[in-house]
Amino acid sequence: MARTILVLGAGKSTAYLLDYFLKKSGEEDLHLRIGDLHPENIPQEFSSHPNCSVFGLDIFKDKERQKAIASASIVVSMLPPRLHIKIAEDCIQFKKHLVTASYVSKEIMALDVEARKSGLVFMNEIGLDPGIDHMSAMEVIDRIRSNGGKMLLFESFTGGLVAPDHDTNLWNYKFTWNPRNVVLAGQGGAAKFIQEGTYKYIPYQKLFRRTELVEIDGYGTFEVYPNRDSLKYREAYGLEDALTLYRGTMRRVGFSKAWQVFVMLGMTDDSYIIENSEGMSYRDFVNLFLPYSPTDSVELKLRHYLKIDQDDIRWGKLMELNLFDDSKKIPLKDATPAKMLQYILEDSWTLKDDEKDMIVMYHKFGYEINGEKKQIDANMVVLGENRTFTAMSKTVGLPVAMATLQILNGKITTPGVQIPIKSEVYSPILSELKSYGIIFNEYEVPYLGYNPDTIAN
Amino acid sequence: MARTILVLGAGKSTAYLLDYFLKKSGEEDLHLRIGDLHPENIPQEFSSHPNCSVFGLDIFKDKERQKAIASASIVVSMLPPRLHIKIAEDCIQFKKHLVTASYVSKEIMALDVEARKSGLVFMNEIGLDPGIDHMSAMEVIDRIRSNGGKMLLFESFTGGLVAPDHDTNLWNYKFTWNPRNVVLAGQGGAAKFIQEGTYKYIPYQKLFRRTELVEIDGYGTFEVYPNRDSLKYREAYGLEDALTLYRGTMRRVGFSKAWQVFVMLGMTDDSYIIENSEGMSYRDFVNLFLPYSPTDSVELKLRHYLKIDQDDIRWGKLMELNLFDDSKKIPLKDATPAKMLQYILEDSWTLKDDEKDMIVMYHKFGYEINGEKKQIDANMVVLGENRTFTAMSKTVGLPVAMATLQILNGKITTPGVQIPIKSEVYSPILSELKSYGIIFNEYEVPYLGYNPDTIAN
Repeated sequence: MARTILVLGAGKSTAYLLDYFLKKSGEEDLHLRIGDLHPENIPQEFSSHPNCSVFGLDIFKDKERQKAIASASIVVSMLPPRLHIKIAEDCIQFKKHLVTASYVSKEIMALDVEARKSGLVFMNEIGLDPGIDHMSAMEVIDRIRSNGGKMLLFESFTGGLVAPDHDTNLWNYKFTWNPRNVVLAGQGGAAKFIQEGTYKYIPYQKLFRRTELVEIDGYGTFEVYPNRDSLKYREAYGLEDALTLYRGTMRRVGFSKAWQVFVMLGMTDDSYIIENSEGMSYRDFVNLFLPYSPTDSVELKLRHYLKIDQDDIRWGKLMELNLFDDSKKIPLKDATPAKMLQYILEDSWTLKDDEKDMIVMYHKFGYEINGEKKQIDANMVVLGENRTFTAMSKTVGLPVAMATLQILNGKITTPGVQIPIKSEVYSPILSELKSYGIIFNEYEVPYLGYNPDTIAN
Repeated sequence: MARTILVLGAGKSTAYLLDYFLKKSGEEDLHLRIGDLHPENIPQEFSSHPNCSVFGLDIFKDKERQKAIASASIVVSMLPPRLHIKIAEDCIQFKKHLVTASYVSKEIMALDVEARKSGLVFMNEIGLDPGIDHMSAMEVIDRIRSNGGKMLLFESFTGGLVAPDHDTNLWNYKFTWNPRNVVLAGQGGAAKFIQEGTYKYIPYQKLFRRTELVEIDGYGTFEVYPNRDSLKYREAYGLEDALTLYRGTMRRVGFSKAWQVFVMLGMTDDSYIIENSEGMSYRDFVNLFLPYSPTDSVELKLRHYLKIDQDDIRWGKLMELNLFDDSKKIPLKDATPAKMLQYILEDSWTLKDDEKDMIVMYHKFGYEINGEKKQIDANMVVLGENRTFTAMSKTVGLPVAMATLQILNGKITTPGVQIPIKSEVYSPILSELKSYGIIFNEYEVPYLGYNPDTIAN
């Protein structure tokens, strides 16, 4: 009898995941069961496959959910992170391995002892970021250490962008993932990291003005703004003694400086409701954040307020978004500034049917070996194929799928709640990812420490 | 038998309050009982007065607290706002009137029905701000209305500053009240107000760059930055139809622009703990918020980061605080940036024994009458006498004391949880305050609406 892989949630990031399982289903003797609230939305190329069955599932209906989990060989949850815990508790009860691409929550972590006891692998953070970042970083870090090197510096950046062929706007940006996360990025506390042994803190109001530049051969220059959580994996990666730890998000150069306009205006605030938001014009929305004037234009007030010269490219970026258009309206009732801004951005930044996305990742590894300081830079670029088979879907879905099969085949066996930082996990998966074109290019570069000359101001 | 006024909490703002009661104690047949956690700190000029008794009271000891309240004729709570509710519940139980200078909390408001039932006056917000602002504003607003005018504009500003004779630093500022509130001012959400019928919102990161200027005869020019709560008393004041509503905090010109340096650096953040805060030098504290450099000075990095020229007065202000001093240390363990900044500021801004404070208040009332638009500006300046008899203590304590006596004497009788916006309350108190030198000067000025030319940028 075929082994059943139960996938819960078949959203837009799952094309490669489902495709991988189905392509392997013959040789690996797999049956793929997909439970989703809207099974009718699952593309027919998957649902009509002989080794696939789909069924409607409301995750809050305990009985149906548990029945599906009880009869599976292994469970993959691609549901929103807050829903994983129900699945995980069932997996403990019915003794099933579990794979997710999400951050380990406290609730999930609390199941670690029970999962170990039952010999269950609860693999998390095995998508793109978190996921490929962990694996590709640990592969190099472990190699440096096994050669006798000592880590001095680790920096890691990821970005979800539009592919160069479709990079057609002044922001060099389109939404290829959850737009809300882009609008709210960086909020909720200061960014914290370490540079040459010193803690550094950046408040939200300066986050997008402390970018660093990196270059990727054949793809040009990118900028990086810091994540809030640069120290998050310090212990997990064994980097307690590293002098520099910095994680960030990649954008095309100039994005952050223009984004800062929204930050300073207050448009990214999600904490309060705008009066009369429904039907408000883009122009009136902008004017909410500018002083009243009986005569001056919204345009001039904004330029003066944020000291934007007429030939500043930021101005072109704002114009491109129709920010001062009086006829374009926001239909959202009781909306926060962030939701209204998101609406305006989606109006311009939504990927068209023929447009492709791009994932970029960049690591820097500084280390000392035999008294010499050295550095390895590694980067990865993945381009989407189309709107279903996106680079995001590929880089999230493939490692999840590969890990699932490895666990099912008894190749990954370490039980408990874990993330992919051990060679047992990352070696086979990174190797298999290469055959799908997910490849890191490594370069030996001079070790400069944290080089302040690369900080754009 | 003398009537007993029970004052709970005799902190630094109560000198005038206690003095008022004791001076009136003969003619009004009053006995003043003061309950405080540290009765030994109450100045002897009060505690040794024949009509005064002081006693140690831990407000969390229900029995002792209730015994004191049960035997009082009226209760005044000068405790921290969160502690009022215990007192208020006792006042309901023992049927006592209650007076506080604090904002009406939800918990206090919930006692309204019961207070009314028992005919009890629960008078709140009758200090300076809130307090004198309510009374002085409503006196003018009611007068305009009784003459047939219609309110168009209301702006109201208050500031606690150092008296001109002791205004000796570049910031024109010293702490005359809770320093923590000054450091945290404006945080927790966007400021919201109305200008000429349009809602306006200012995020924290721009709050101190949207100041308005006002002038007070004989005292020069002040600046105002907006409060978060400009619409708070819209209904209470009956200003639902006013086109402009704006409340703010007054500082000397240039304070806010320099304060913005701390905001943009991230030094006012109270939401996270700085690693190794204990023993950190002022200079290292500043450097936490600046990029790492192996060579550049903290000074130059800050100037470059915030674009401060060498001859910018903001630079002088920062130097005056010894912000770049390597020998001055912050002794606070596990401190937030805000607490560390507060320590540095208190080092420079603490009022000396011979220094006096100053309270300024400024209202603008725009209205229409007989088809004509008019405006009244009213302002008040109160100077402190010394470090005990401060302007803050005077403007907070006297209205509380006067209201207490009026209630005790059956002159203020409207029962329930209330704030001083009715003529019954404000007329006698404003009149009596005049004899203590708390006087509003009124000026007829041209009605300009919200005049954008007065906004400093």
